[in-house]
Amino acid sequence: MVKAAEQEHPIPATGLAAQDSSGVLSPFNFSRRETGEKDVRFRVLYCGICHSDLHMAKNEWGTSIYPLIPGHEIVGVVTEVGDKVQKFKIGDNVGVGCMVGACHSCENCNKNNLENYCPNMIFTYSAKYHDGTVTYGGYSDHMVADEHYVVRIPDGLPLDAGAPLLCAGITVYSPLKYFGLDNPGTRVGIVGLGGLGHVAVKFAKAMGANVTVISTSINKKEEALEKLGADSFLVSRDQDQMNAAIGTLDSIIDTVSAVHSLLPLIRLLKSHGKLVMVGVPEKPLEQPIFPLLMGRKIVAGSAMGGMKETQEIIEFGAKHNIRADIELIPADYVNTAMKRLVKGDINYRFVIDVGNTLKSSN
Amino acid sequence: MVKAAEQEHPIPATGLAAQDSSGVLSPFNFSRRETGEKDVRFRVLYCGICHSDLHMAKNEWGTSIYPLIPGHEIVGVVTEVGDKVQKFKIGDNVGVGCMVGACHSCENCNKNNLENYCPNMIFTYSAKYHDGTVTYGGYSDHMVADEHYVVRIPDGLPLDAGAPLLCAGITVYSPLKYFGLDNPGTRVGIVGLGGLGHVAVKFAKAMGANVTVISTSINKKEEALEKLGADSFLVSRDQDQMNAAIGTLDSIIDTVSAVHSLLPLIRLLKSHGKLVMVGVPEKPLEQPIFPLLMGRKIVAGSAMGGMKETQEIIEFGAKHNIRADIELIPADYVNTAMKRLVKGDINYRFVIDVGNTLKSSN
Repeated sequence: MVKAAEQEHPIPATGLAAQDSSGVLSPFNFSRRETGEKDVRFRVLYCGICHSDLHMAKNEWGTSIYPLIPGHEIVGVVTEVGDKVQKFKIGDNVGVGCMVGACHSCENCNKNNLENYCPNMIFTYSAKYHDGTVTYGGYSDHMVADEHYVVRIPDGLPLDAGAPLLCAGITVYSPLKYFGLDNPGTRVGIVGLGGLGHVAVKFAKAMGANVTVISTSINKKEEALEKLGADSFLVSRDQDQMNAAIGTLDSIIDTVSAVHSLLPLIRLLKSHGKLVMVGVPEKPLEQPIFPLLMGRKIVAGSAMGGMKETQEIIEFGAKHNIRADIELIPADYVNTAMKRLVKGDINYRFVIDVGNTLKSSN
Repeated sequence: MVKAAEQEHPIPATGLAAQDSSGVLSPFNFSRRETGEKDVRFRVLYCGICHSDLHMAKNEWGTSIYPLIPGHEIVGVVTEVGDKVQKFKIGDNVGVGCMVGACHSCENCNKNNLENYCPNMIFTYSAKYHDGTVTYGGYSDHMVADEHYVVRIPDGLPLDAGAPLLCAGITVYSPLKYFGLDNPGTRVGIVGLGGLGHVAVKFAKAMGANVTVISTSINKKEEALEKLGADSFLVSRDQDQMNAAIGTLDSIIDTVSAVHSLLPLIRLLKSHGKLVMVGVPEKPLEQPIFPLLMGRKIVAGSAMGGMKETQEIIEFGAKHNIRADIELIPADYVNTAMKRLVKGDINYRFVIDVGNTLKSSN
C-alpha cells in the first residue's frame, strides 16, 4: 500500500488512487476533513465507474492532480451530520455526484439552481476545495460533503444500480428537460449506446418520447429495441438507412466521446431540430454551417445538472423504475474494469461494491 | 446583347445575366410569365446587391443555372395584378425578397409561416419554379410573383435604402426575434460589419439591445459606435480585448462568410449563450465541444425569414427609421461593384438604380 501523502485533515480514509498518468489504481491511505456544521459524512457502499474517471486517471484532459481518487457516482449511508445540517440524519441513504461545491453568489448558483454552470464549481475529485485541499472521489471508504451537494436516495431505488444516475443519469436527463425533448411523442435520437446512452433511452422513454438509437454497430439492435425499449435503431454506417431517416428526428442527444462527424446527425433532424452534445471529444469536430442555416437547427452542449435537478432525477428514476444496467465488481477488479471500459466491453456500467470489498485501513 | 434563350413565357423582359462561372453580368433579353390570377407584376425600381448574388453568379455554391439573373432585394411599383389578388393594386410600392414559392402543404408553410424552411422552397433566382421554368431575379426591368411572396413597402421607407431589408434585414431580424435577443438590455454581439452586420446593429439597437460589434479591423470602430450606434467594439485580433470580454455576451449574430474560428466567439458568451450563424462559409468550421458543454451554449443557424415576418420587418424598419447605408449605382456599374464587393470596398450595400438606368428592350 502506498504511504499516505502529507495530510491536512484529521479523519483517516482509504481509497483507490492513481499516482500518475499510467492510470493504474492502487490502495491509498489519505484523510478527509472533520464533519463541518453543514457537512454530511457517509460510508460509501457503491460507486459507479464513469468514462471520465478513466480520462482523469490517465490525465487525458490535462487537469489531473495526483494522487487522484476517482468516482462521482457515489452512494452510501450517513454516519454523521454537522450541527446545522437540516436535510439528513444518520442512517439515511444518500449520494454525491459530479460536484461538491460552487461559489453560491453568481446567477447560476443563486437564481438558476445551476451550480454545474458556476464558473467556480468544484468537481468531486481532483479539484481544489474551498479550503485549498484537493478533493477525492468515491473510490473510497467514506465521503464527506456539504449537504447542499448531497442527494437523498429514495426507497425503491437500488443503491448499486441507482448510483450511475448521479452522473450518467443527470447528464442525459438535464438536456432532455432543458431542450424540451420531454414531450410525449417527441422523436428523440440517442447516439451511442454506452453508459450514458442506455440511461438516456430509458429516461426518454419514461418521458414519452419516441426513441431512435443511432449506433455504429448493428450488434446492439436487439438489446436496444427489446431490452431498453427503443422504438427504432439506425446503423450510422449504413448509408441507405441514414438517408431514409433524413429529417425525421426532433432532437438528438449525442453521447459519443470519440471524434465523429456531425453532418449525418444534423441531416437526421427536422427543421428547428437540436443536436445536443454530452460527450467530450478530445478534438474539435467539423461543423458544417449551411445545413444548420437551412433548417434553423442548433448544436448545443450540456454538462451534468444542478443539485435541485439531480435530486429531481433521482426521484424520477425511483418513480419510473429507472436504473442503470450494471456489472457489480469488487474493488480489486477496478484496473481490469478500466481496461474493459477502453474496449467497450461492458453492458453498460461498472459499479464498484465499495462497502463489501474495499478494505478499510481504519 | 446576348440573344434571348428559348423562352416558354410570353412577356418580354430585360435584365443583367451571368452566362457562365466568370460571373460577368451583361444585358440579356428573356421573358416572364403572364400575370396569373394570384400574381403581382411590378416594374423594378431598385435592387440590392447581396454577397450571395456574387457567389451565385460565379457558381461558388455549385447550384447555379445559367443564364443567371441575380437579385433578391427587389423593390418596385405594381403595374398589373391578377383577378384574385387581394392585397395589392396598381401603383402600390412592393418588394420581393429571397423566395417566390414553396409547397404550402408542409408544417413550416401552413402552420409556422416559415416558407423559408419549406424543403421545397423556391429561390427568387436560379431555381425551378412550379411550372418547370427557371426563376430570374431582380437585376431586371420587371418582376412577377405570387402575391404571397410580395410585401408591401410602407410610406416612410425609402425604396432604395429599404430594398436591402428584404434580404440583409430579414436575415438578421429573424434570429434576433426567434432566439429571444430582442429584450431590452440583452447583450448582443454582431460579428462582421458588412451588408448584414451593419443592419443587424441597427435592428438590435432598435430592439433595445446593448450591442457589441466584433470585427477583425479597428478601422470601423468610430463608424460602428458613432454612426451605427453600437455600444462597444471588439477587435477580434486583439487577444487582450477578447480575453477581457470573455463571458460578457448573451448572444452573438455571426454574419461572416469567410472561414473563421468559433472558439473565441463561444468564449465571449455567458452560460446559456447563443451563437447564431447567418453567413455561409464554404467549408465546415472547427467546432470545439467542451466549451459548449461547460456553459450549455448553443451554435445555431438561421436563414432569411418567412413572408409574414418579412412584412413585419419592413413595417418595423419604416417605424424605427431603419434602412441600409447604401451606394446607389447605375446598371452598367454592376461588374465594377461586384469586384469592389470581393474586396470589401463598400459601406455597406450597393443598390442598383434599375428604374433609371437599366435599358429596357420593350
